Amino acid sequence: MPSFNPVSADLIAQLITILGSVNVSTARADIDLHAKDQSQHHAVPSEVVIWPLSAQQVADVLKLAHEQRVPVTPWGVGTGLEGNSIPVRGGILMSFERMNQIVAIHADDFQVTVQPGIGHKDLNAQLARHGLFFPPDPGANATVGGMLANNAAGIRTVKYGASKDNVLKMQVALADGRLIHVGSRSVKQSAGYDLLHLFVGSEGTLGVITEATLKLVPVPTHMSAALAAFPSIKSAVETVVAIRGSGLDPAALELIDANHCRMLREAEGINLSDHPTLFMEFHAAQETALTAGLEIVEDICKEMGALSFHATTDATERKKLWHARHHSYEIMVRSHPDKTFFINDVAVPISAYPELIATVEHIRDTQPITCYMIGHAGDGNIHVEFPFSGEEGYQQAMTANGLIVSKAVELGGTCTGEHGVGIGKAKYLRAEHGQALDVMHDIKTLLDPNGILNPGKIFVEG
Amino acid sequence: MPSFNPVSADLIAQLITILGSVNVSTARADIDLHAKDQSQHHAVPSEVVIWPLSAQQVADVLKLAHEQRVPVTPWGVGTGLEGNSIPVRGGILMSFERMNQIVAIHADDFQVTVQPGIGHKDLNAQLARHGLFFPPDPGANATVGGMLANNAAGIRTVKYGASKDNVLKMQVALADGRLIHVGSRSVKQSAGYDLLHLFVGSEGTLGVITEATLKLVPVPTHMSAALAAFPSIKSAVETVVAIRGSGLDPAALELIDANHCRMLREAEGINLSDHPTLFMEFHAAQETALTAGLEIVEDICKEMGALSFHATTDATERKKLWHARHHSYEIMVRSHPDKTFFINDVAVPISAYPELIATVEHIRDTQPITCYMIGHAGDGNIHVEFPFSGEEGYQQAMTANGLIVSKAVELGGTCTGEHGVGIGKAKYLRAEHGQALDVMHDIKTLLDPNGILNPGKIFVEG
Repeated sequence: MPSFNPVSADLIAQLITILGSVNVSTARADIDLHAKDQSQHHAVPSEVVIWPLSAQQVADVLKLAHEQRVPVTPWGVGTGLEGNSIPVRGGILMSFERMNQIVAIHADDFQVTVQPGIGHKDLNAQLARHGLFFPPDPGANATVGGMLANNAAGIRTVKYGASKDNVLKMQVALADGRLIHVGSRSVKQSAGYDLLHLFVGSEGTLGVITEATLKLVPVPTHMSAALAAFPSIKSAVETVVAIRGSGLDPAALELIDANHCRMLREAEGINLSDHPTLFMEFHAAQETALTAGLEIVEDICKEMGALSFHATTDATERKKLWHARHHSYEIMVRSHPDKTFFINDVAVPISAYPELIATVEHIRDTQPITCYMIGHAGDGNIHVEFPFSGEEGYQQAMTANGLIVSKAVELGGTCTGEHGVGIGKAKYLRAEHGQALDVMHDIKTLLDPNGILNPGKIFVEG
Repeated sequence: MPSFNPVSADLIAQLITILGSVNVSTARADIDLHAKDQSQHHAVPSEVVIWPLSAQQVADVLKLAHEQRVPVTPWGVGTGLEGNSIPVRGGILMSFERMNQIVAIHADDFQVTVQPGIGHKDLNAQLARHGLFFPPDPGANATVGGMLANNAAGIRTVKYGASKDNVLKMQVALADGRLIHVGSRSVKQSAGYDLLHLFVGSEGTLGVITEATLKLVPVPTHMSAALAAFPSIKSAVETVVAIRGSGLDPAALELIDANHCRMLREAEGINLSDHPTLFMEFHAAQETALTAGLEIVEDICKEMGALSFHATTDATERKKLWHARHHSYEIMVRSHPDKTFFINDVAVPISAYPELIATVEHIRDTQPITCYMIGHAGDGNIHVEFPFSGEEGYQQAMTANGLIVSKAVELGGTCTGEHGVGIGKAKYLRAEHGQALDVMHDIKTLLDPNGILNPGKIFVEG
């Protein structure tokens, strides 16, 4: 584990010289606002919060921190779910709140260049007038920098890919103060090593993203939604495989378990039965393609034993449905006012999804825990949500989480599909990666020899 | 530049112990068969050719070569276009010809696990019975290992992505003999650094791919082809932008210049005029979607000033058209029987494509060279093909190539879109990557401290 120096008065003065005094704070309120994300992980205070305004300032701060062996933890907007941006070793908390601008819209290229602190929802609001959008959608209004650092994904990933699939080029500040560019605005590039994807998903431990050029897609002109209830999760998942095999390319393919369906019906008035249900969305350039596609989807669902099928191309109804899906977590939290929630995140090859789900059901029925399941089924990704209270409840949830993660890895899957490693998943990486974890650590040491970049994340040893 | 030892009689004996004598050859015929790819780069003989049969054998050989400081150059089937697999420093030539099996078909997951020596056409022939295919198509029957090592792409990349977008997991042998797994069979993974994409496109200089799990897609049930001729390359390229903006998601979007059109008409009887022409293909799950899509495409082409438009859903006619496009290089070579050909490969953001093409036209008209253009326009990728003879002709083509590459990089593009760096593009990487090239070299040194893996490629300094 690397050893660090505390933030000295001298360093604060140097930070003020680089950033200006309005962009450096040791006030308790600022420290506390940047000590915890949306996960169950405990708050840890940094020693100073800074708000850089430019890539060069980021680089200058890193160079100082590197020389003085002080930790630097980058911060988007704190929507992480694995403690990814909690400054567990103290030091400098680097907020990107004031680097939140669109740098350039390249409409003909379906690209936009942004500063890392812009929220993806804010970005998409500004892109709407160009008929374009940045498709990865992790739910919360996460910053683009945070999404790239964690390789965030979400509901539309089944069609449009994760964050890593929707970025072309980044500017990155290295620990030693170098500013480099990785990737290319050319959508095709075979010119040397793919450093772009090395930094994407590295959670700020290899370098700090200071600018990114994103791939955009045209806003679909025609959209539909469909709901299908099934007698079992197994038949629902088999339907997922059949729909993907049909070539229909769904834009969302979500599984909601029976308990969630009941909660959504009661809270939002959505017409759902107490059965595992698939929420689907389809995008098309033509109305006729959409209608023809829905007929195929209905045929597949019925063939696979669906108890009910309902489809709509009405925008209001579709939005109501997805509003309920998007807010399912809040609805669940509201219905357990005395509980804290822990959200698990694992993913497996789709063929292993039924076995994974059966394991979760078995754990739910045999362990002293309650849990709910909601999943990006089209991607083989599931979130198991545990309401708990107290330290004992937390440990019970963690034990169940460990069993689910082990099963996912055993099935050829991953300990985290989209939330990143952060604090909570570090202990599972050896089982998932074997000796490749040593290569990751060697690269970490190469690029950040003093270990100042977001310490305490990804690697158990710091 | 690293210094190496020659292949000793003792090393040959050790190779025979690992591989068996039938898989080790110093015969002149074998050396010569593995000394040159399909590019204009000169043949260079290795000292011994070996055919490993397993990942462990690959790892064992690398460990020996690492300890004895002997170069190892991996070889697929020799279809490279930048000398990527020419053993320029001698040593061991490692052919994957005998590791060419499908390891497992995961039909429900739309995945296949293969040994690296399988040809992608041979793979797709075997996958057809499952209704699936591996979409990257570089033209020649390249091996999957070679495609991944070079991040090869081709005609269908505009819809389905390059090789890097169609691989999920690989087994890689490192220079020191470790065998690691990178990536995951889960289509989503946010568990640590993306080593998968670090090795993809690294041209065998960081490790040797010994197994790969590929993403597959359902064979489309309905396909169409369309041809549109334009008065200028500028209007053709503006049409490309408009089609991509329509959300129609073409499966191919190729630009053929007027000279190529004339050659294809004369050699293959395709009904083409002497004008820049777009070759397009569309895939859909439903007939109605295809028909509706073609109407939109026709409207766009006419609005953009197309001189002619012809579309077909007839399989025979479509295949004839694409046969001509696929064989355009051979047709061109046949029509210049006294020439050698050099193929340039650059790519830019699509908005810069007209300026790039204008630069090529200017170079063609002012330099002592002839050239033809054929491009994956949907990706901003162009190949400029130079017929030449003799050393002077070669130097003239190289000068023109350098001017085109510089322009592409200046326009925010890349010195190679799909052929890789190999020998010919190494000198352009500094201009394209700046200080990021130092990071690439540091990673090379970290993973291959003795520099034995495919030396003389990617980096000018060896």
